[in-house]
Amino acid sequence: MKKISLLGATGSIGIQTLEVIESHPEEFKLVAMSFGRNYKSGSDIIKKFKPEFVAVKDKETYEHLKREFSSQDVKLGYGEEALIEAAIYDGVECLVNAVVGSVGLIPTLKAIENNITIALANKETLVTAGHLVTEHAKKYNVNILPVDSEHSAIFQCLQGESVKSIDRLIITASGGSFRDRKREDLVNVTVDQALNHPNWSMGAKITIDSATMMNKGLEVIEAHWLFNLHYDKIDVLLHKESIIHSLVEFHDRSIIAQLGTPDMRVPIQYALTYPERLPLKEAKRLELWEIGKLHFEKADFTRFRCLQYAFDSGKIGGTMPTVLNAANEVAVEAFLSGKITFLQIEEFIERSLDKHESIANPSLEQIQEVDQLTRNFVQTLI
Amino acid sequence: MKKISLLGATGSIGIQTLEVIESHPEEFKLVAMSFGRNYKSGSDIIKKFKPEFVAVKDKETYEHLKREFSSQDVKLGYGEEALIEAAIYDGVECLVNAVVGSVGLIPTLKAIENNITIALANKETLVTAGHLVTEHAKKYNVNILPVDSEHSAIFQCLQGESVKSIDRLIITASGGSFRDRKREDLVNVTVDQALNHPNWSMGAKITIDSATMMNKGLEVIEAHWLFNLHYDKIDVLLHKESIIHSLVEFHDRSIIAQLGTPDMRVPIQYALTYPERLPLKEAKRLELWEIGKLHFEKADFTRFRCLQYAFDSGKIGGTMPTVLNAANEVAVEAFLSGKITFLQIEEFIERSLDKHESIANPSLEQIQEVDQLTRNFVQTLI
Repeated sequence: MKKISLLGATGSIGIQTLEVIESHPEEFKLVAMSFGRNYKSGSDIIKKFKPEFVAVKDKETYEHLKREFSSQDVKLGYGEEALIEAAIYDGVECLVNAVVGSVGLIPTLKAIENNITIALANKETLVTAGHLVTEHAKKYNVNILPVDSEHSAIFQCLQGESVKSIDRLIITASGGSFRDRKREDLVNVTVDQALNHPNWSMGAKITIDSATMMNKGLEVIEAHWLFNLHYDKIDVLLHKESIIHSLVEFHDRSIIAQLGTPDMRVPIQYALTYPERLPLKEAKRLELWEIGKLHFEKADFTRFRCLQYAFDSGKIGGTMPTVLNAANEVAVEAFLSGKITFLQIEEFIERSLDKHESIANPSLEQIQEVDQLTRNFVQTLI
Repeated sequence: MKKISLLGATGSIGIQTLEVIESHPEEFKLVAMSFGRNYKSGSDIIKKFKPEFVAVKDKETYEHLKREFSSQDVKLGYGEEALIEAAIYDGVECLVNAVVGSVGLIPTLKAIENNITIALANKETLVTAGHLVTEHAKKYNVNILPVDSEHSAIFQCLQGESVKSIDRLIITASGGSFRDRKREDLVNVTVDQALNHPNWSMGAKITIDSATMMNKGLEVIEAHWLFNLHYDKIDVLLHKESIIHSLVEFHDRSIIAQLGTPDMRVPIQYALTYPERLPLKEAKRLELWEIGKLHFEKADFTRFRCLQYAFDSGKIGGTMPTVLNAANEVAVEAFLSGKITFLQIEEFIERSLDKHESIANPSLEQIQEVDQLTRNFVQTLI
């Protein structure tokens, strides 16, 4: 029985993680969790999974929960400290970090210090502080298991292989909601159009990141850290069906790929069961003859500028990816609330990157400072 | 330095094995080899690779070689005994069995008894005597490494995985020279048309087997033995580009696939370097965006009857696959020499299978007897 802490339980990954836990009650137990402001969903999860500890974002939600669950045996907390407490709660063996944004960083570091395996769906953690997280994981000999479908694919392809024989990681990209539009057709796109992803049902932030391809850019940086490979060995390939989730090319020109119908429960469960696999009957079997054709295109770095920004920031390193990520978070939020246009997301990121001088090998404090400064700067642009 | 014996050196797989050996002179040394009647090519190989022992098919070739290489330090032999001698020659660590037909069986068994790793390109060995070969390999704790691109693909996909989590092997098939023809358009096809394979440059026998899909059928039986899986867990998928060489579906619905440009040097080298990989710069890097599309179709067992015969024979087991293979070998030879039509290959195989009553768990002698009886029977039909 693996004891699990789940941060971001009411989000898309959170809910699917709960489905996996539920389908294997003999294997997994949810002992701690966190959620943000989605009260109804959070409250239902507590009733169903009966975790020992629940962290929420703000005091108001906390008070509300306290009244509802006063008679029950569940400990409650709120704010950043409670999030950490949930991450390292007594007995936790695996932390599923599925929060959105850089708030996921410190709980991850703390969990590593407590020798808790990390199932990482929070890509900002590696993007903003990849060097700290991977050094930490190495120091404490803790596994960081990817939950993103692409990184899980690569991780699965690498089983039984030696890192020194990798020639290239090929991360596939659906192209997002606007993959069939030219750049000039992006000027007046709406939030609803951007949120209409062709293959995956995901949260709002990541769906917008898919439309700008920043999501793929963040994945490139994440892959750099997870698999300890230079950016020259990481490629992006447009593949609109999202059937091949990513590929690894070895130096004998053999390529190993992981495929499946788009279903996040597969990579989530793999992270929870690794190095074993468990049946997942709920997932649809992939029959390639039903699909008939798979399409591939070269990724266009002029059409998808965020992809170029990500490679550039990643190669510069230091605090540059922190700026990329922070500027993107604020700009996407502004786009979602109708304050800026779709193309302004790119523009504000570019202006933030242009303005920043990267600090090499930054400390956690420096990262947090740069993160905050960038957010403030983008706010002035909105 | 791995010492290699290569049976079938002048064939397509043989020549490509020599290319791999040549490109890694610090890793591999050819110490023994065999060839059939292709004197010029065989003699050139002896001069270039200087093996210690050479086995040829007949006495005439042997005498000829003896005259040519009288002054040199190479031992020579002919016939079946010499083939065995080559297979287990002093110091051999890996036997690449690339002969065509069931003549490859006894050298394989002898090599296993001598604890020599088998790199198996001779599929008839497993088709006719899979139970004997795999039991033998288990008894002597010897690895049988597949060289066929499909089985190598599956073998690569299974690295780091547990056999108990396999749901299905999916063997891809190009469909061969006549993949775009209907059954009624096969009546008058010529040998030259049949030999014109769209993706792979291979020997004549296997190219005809591709056109009838018997090659895929033999591969299904081979896969059954190599991976110890029931026929219900083996599927065939038409994939005309031959880019995905095969796939494995696990019980969590995750599929791992191996891909590459069609180049037999990749699986050959993998068998020689397993479990490591070595660079193979000569092979062309696969860029999926250059290919653009991959196509998949359901395999049609009415159009490709040999595929059905293979599954049926495999499930019946015993000596039935021996009949399948022997009838096919004789019929293909007759087609290649213009004695029968393309569709008669299927017809003669079907008649041979219908006539035979399978002997369960046959001995080597029984297999050889059934093999010979089948060959005689098909000769009477020609």
